[in-house]
Amino acid sequence: MRNAFQDQLDAVFVDLAGICRRVENAVALASIALLEGDARVAEQVISGDAEIDAARERVEETCFTLLSLQQPVAGDLRVVISALRIVSELERMGDLSVHVAKIARLRVPELAVPDEIRPTMSQMADVARDMVARLAQIITDRDVQAAMALGRDDDEMDRLRRQSFRDLLSGQWSSGVEPAVDVALLGRYYERIADHAVSVAHRIVFVVTGQQPVDA
Amino acid sequence: MRNAFQDQLDAVFVDLAGICRRVENAVALASIALLEGDARVAEQVISGDAEIDAARERVEETCFTLLSLQQPVAGDLRVVISALRIVSELERMGDLSVHVAKIARLRVPELAVPDEIRPTMSQMADVARDMVARLAQIITDRDVQAAMALGRDDDEMDRLRRQSFRDLLSGQWSSGVEPAVDVALLGRYYERIADHAVSVAHRIVFVVTGQQPVDA
Repeated sequence: MRNAFQDQLDAVFVDLAGICRRVENAVALASIALLEGDARVAEQVISGDAEIDAARERVEETCFTLLSLQQPVAGDLRVVISALRIVSELERMGDLSVHVAKIARLRVPELAVPDEIRPTMSQMADVARDMVARLAQIITDRDVQAAMALGRDDDEMDRLRRQSFRDLLSGQWSSGVEPAVDVALLGRYYERIADHAVSVAHRIVFVVTGQQPVDA
Repeated sequence: MRNAFQDQLDAVFVDLAGICRRVENAVALASIALLEGDARVAEQVISGDAEIDAARERVEETCFTLLSLQQPVAGDLRVVISALRIVSELERMGDLSVHVAKIARLRVPELAVPDEIRPTMSQMADVARDMVARLAQIITDRDVQAAMALGRDDDEMDRLRRQSFRDLLSGQWSSGVEPAVDVALLGRYYERIADHAVSVAHRIVFVVTGQQPVDA
C-alpha cells in the first residue's frame, strides 16, 4: 500500500508541474496580449483557462481518492493537503492571467499600457513569467534551495510595483486617468501571481522538509 | 467514534463562524477608517489581523487532527476539507480588509475617497460588511437558502464596481490620478471580499447537501 500511495502522490506532483506549465503559458500570452494589444492572443488566454480549471478538478479528485482509500496520517496527510492547496493557488494564478488578458482585450486597438510606464510593466510581466517557469521546475525537482530563492524574485516584483506607483503619482504622469486605473490593477494582478508563486514554493519546501520556511 | 467526530466537526464550524464575525468587524472598521480618515481605527484593523491568522491556524490543526485520528471517508472527508478551504478564504478576507485599512492610513489626514465617488464607495463598504455578517449567520445555521441568496448581493457589488469605473472614466472625474488609483484598488479589494463570501457560502451548501450549487 505504501508504494502505491507514493506512486500516486508522485503522479499528483507531475500533474501539478504540468498545470504550472500551463499557467506559465497563460502568463506569457497574457503579457503579449497586453504589450502588443493583440485581441486574438487575449482570447486564447481567456478561453484556455477552462483547461486549467479542468486539470485542477482532476488533481482534486485524485487527492480525495488518495485520502479516502489510503487514509494517510501525519506527514503523508499533510503532503496531500498541500497538493490540494497548491492546485488551488495555481488555478488562481490562471485566473489572474485572464484578468490581465481581459484588460488587454478591453483596450484593443489601443494599448492599455502607455509608453511612459511600458518599461516597468514589461519588467513586471517578465518577472512574473520567470517566477512561474521556475516554480514549475521547483515542483518537478522538489528543489528546496530554488524554492527558497524564489522569494528574492518576489522582492524584485515588489520593487517594480513601488516603481509603478512612483511612475503614476510623480506628477509627471501624462496619460490620464483610464490608463492609470488599468496600470494600478495590472500591477496588482502581477503582484498576486508572484505572491502565489512564492506561497506554492513554500508549500514545496514543506512537502520536502516537513517544515515551513522561516520567512513564510 | 462517529459521535465524537460529529461533535468535533460542529466545534470547527462554531470556530469558523467566530472567525467570520472577526472578519465582519475588520471589514466594518476598515471602511470607517477609509471613509472617516481615521488612522487609529486603521491601525486597529492592521494589528488585529494577527488574531484572525492565529484562529485560522487553530482551526487547521483541529482539522488535521480530525483527519488523522478519525480517518473520515466520502462525505465526512469532504466536509473537513471544506472547512480547511473556508478558513483559508476567511483569512484572505481579513487580509483584504487590511489592504483597505492601509490605503486609508496612507492618505491620513486626507481622505482616500473623494466626495465625487463617496456614495459608490460607501455602498460597496456597506454591501461587503452586510455580506460578511450574513455569511457568519449562514455558517452558524448551515442555511442553504440564505447561502444561495448571497449571490444576489454579489450582483449588487458587481454593479457598484461597474458604477465606480463609470465614475472614474466618465470624463467628469476631477480628483486626479492618485485618488483614481486608490479607488480602483479599493474597488478590487471590496469585490474580492464579496467573491470570497459567495465562495464560502457555496461551500456551506456543499457541506449541507453534498452538492455544489449549480451556479458555483
